[in-house]
Amino acid sequence: MRITVLTMFPELFGDFRKSPVLARELDRGRVELKIVDIKEYAPGSFRWIDDSPYGGGAGMILRCQPVLDALKAVRRPESYVVIPAPVGKVFRQADAHRFSAMEDLILICGHYEGLDARIYEHADELISVGDYILTGGELPAMVLIDAAVRLREGALRGESTRDESFENGLLEYPQYTRPADYQGQRVPEILLSGNHEEIRKWRLAESLRLTRKLRPDLLKDRPDLSEE
Amino acid sequence: MRITVLTMFPELFGDFRKSPVLARELDRGRVELKIVDIKEYAPGSFRWIDDSPYGGGAGMILRCQPVLDALKAVRRPESYVVIPAPVGKVFRQADAHRFSAMEDLILICGHYEGLDARIYEHADELISVGDYILTGGELPAMVLIDAAVRLREGALRGESTRDESFENGLLEYPQYTRPADYQGQRVPEILLSGNHEEIRKWRLAESLRLTRKLRPDLLKDRPDLSEE
Repeated sequence: MRITVLTMFPELFGDFRKSPVLARELDRGRVELKIVDIKEYAPGSFRWIDDSPYGGGAGMILRCQPVLDALKAVRRPESYVVIPAPVGKVFRQADAHRFSAMEDLILICGHYEGLDARIYEHADELISVGDYILTGGELPAMVLIDAAVRLREGALRGESTRDESFENGLLEYPQYTRPADYQGQRVPEILLSGNHEEIRKWRLAESLRLTRKLRPDLLKDRPDLSEE
Repeated sequence: MRITVLTMFPELFGDFRKSPVLARELDRGRVELKIVDIKEYAPGSFRWIDDSPYGGGAGMILRCQPVLDALKAVRRPESYVVIPAPVGKVFRQADAHRFSAMEDLILICGHYEGLDARIYEHADELISVGDYILTGGELPAMVLIDAAVRLREGALRGESTRDESFENGLLEYPQYTRPADYQGQRVPEILLSGNHEEIRKWRLAESLRLTRKLRPDLLKDRPDLSEE
């Protein structure tokens, strides 16, 4: 999997490479992460990269030319171009699975007030990581990469993704580890029972209870949920 | 504003400090960011930090002791403790405003399969940055910090937050900058007209049109939207 990020702040991606799962995939050569500095494509020693918005308003807008020239330099026929943007489709776990199967993913990070809207027309998809505003597209790009890379075959070792929140459309049941009593806080007795069928039922019931209590929106339109 | 992050991977936060707005706030001494290594609170040279889940299952669970001892060491009476977690309340722009006003914010990052659920009871709030799974709580912590810090008085300079997506419950209208024609892609004529009232109306109409088309869910329950 080849991932290319276009950004004005390539220095923000240095430590990101050390993220446990990503670092392993990079080391193994199973994922390639290339960070491209959009400023390299801006003209002159002044690196003219942004300008005021047409029609007035605060802030600066990233210009078409440096962004689209940078894109042209890295885009291949098989590339899938995603721009993290508040106006995008809301990112969900199913999208992480979809991205994890891509061979060539390009992410374009906006900054300041945003990108010239004409740039959006060159993307295959706009994605929003949530209903909030960040200073740029860099953290959302890291979120998309992290969510996708960990789902790749063999990326996680002992860990499993099957029972995680959202994988079955429910929140995950609570997990506990030793000791059974930590300063008076006790682990639910059933988990100490060794009765695997009862534990399975309890976990399912907890998932449903938590989801109903905290995220009833996830339970709408779920005819697939069995009687159990 | 004092922000403390408890994490097993403090090295992931080095470059994060260079984020444009955060870096300025740190330099000015208006925000203090302390990264605490949970491993420092784990016993022995082996740093026993995680263990298998009670009741069976894949993956490892962070133990209560190192996390809660680290929390105890940094928590003050005025601290507000947030744990990024998939089971948390969905983070929205209003939460970013709420966090931006806090004087002492502590974020606890889970990793692997997650935290022992008893740790959650020591938090003031669990927050989910979206319906997807990441390898740890580090990126969500950065997202919360970035979203909150940029909203602090004086954190943004020329930029404005007023017209941004979600601030008025709508997606933002498209923005353009020079040139008016970029390789055949033209800026909407009205933005070149200089008629500020018409531009204001066009932007509002575009915000509504985009929101209705892309995020109709944001338009439910909006009796506050005026006739215009």
